[in-house]
Amino acid sequence: MSNALTPEIIQERIKKIPEWELNEDSISRSFEFDEYQFAIDFVNTIAEIAEEAQHHPDISINYTNVTLVLTTHSKGGLTESDFEVALRIDSLGD
Amino acid sequence: MSNALTPEIIQERIKKIPEWELNEDSISRSFEFDEYQFAIDFVNTIAEIAEEAQHHPDISINYTNVTLVLTTHSKGGLTESDFEVALRIDSLGD
Repeated sequence: MSNALTPEIIQERIKKIPEWELNEDSISRSFEFDEYQFAIDFVNTIAEIAEEAQHHPDISINYTNVTLVLTTHSKGGLTESDFEVALRIDSLGD
Repeated sequence: MSNALTPEIIQERIKKIPEWELNEDSISRSFEFDEYQFAIDFVNTIAEIAEEAQHHPDISINYTNVTLVLTTHSKGGLTESDFEVALRIDSLGD
């Protein structure tokens, strides 16, 4: 298990995921879809990534909008796991 | 489209769904599952109900916990649609 990252390392890591917002102890990104079912399909894909990584983002579904929040509760902040999962999610669009 | 319900009717309707919490302008219920995939399966079932009813609860997934919030934004409060969808969700356990 990775430890909570220092603010300096967080500033480095966040540069690689410019679509994500850096919050107090988490990172978040919202996705908007054309149809409700596309949003649900996306949530299923996120769930697969989460299970593979054994690291599960909080997911909010508001009709066609899906918001993901990553943090590592057990470490009280952001860890490498959060940034790894964010990178995997961002690579879905490739 | 049904209109926003009066407080008196809301008090009647909420009696039929005792597991739901009555909030300011919404009703909510949380569900806890033994496994992450069960939570995701449940979300897919909720999505089917939502599409059939053309009324979509806000859904929050926090690992094995799923919280649903029902309100009718276009009417600025609770309508019959919210209670109908809540009843359908509650009947899943039957």
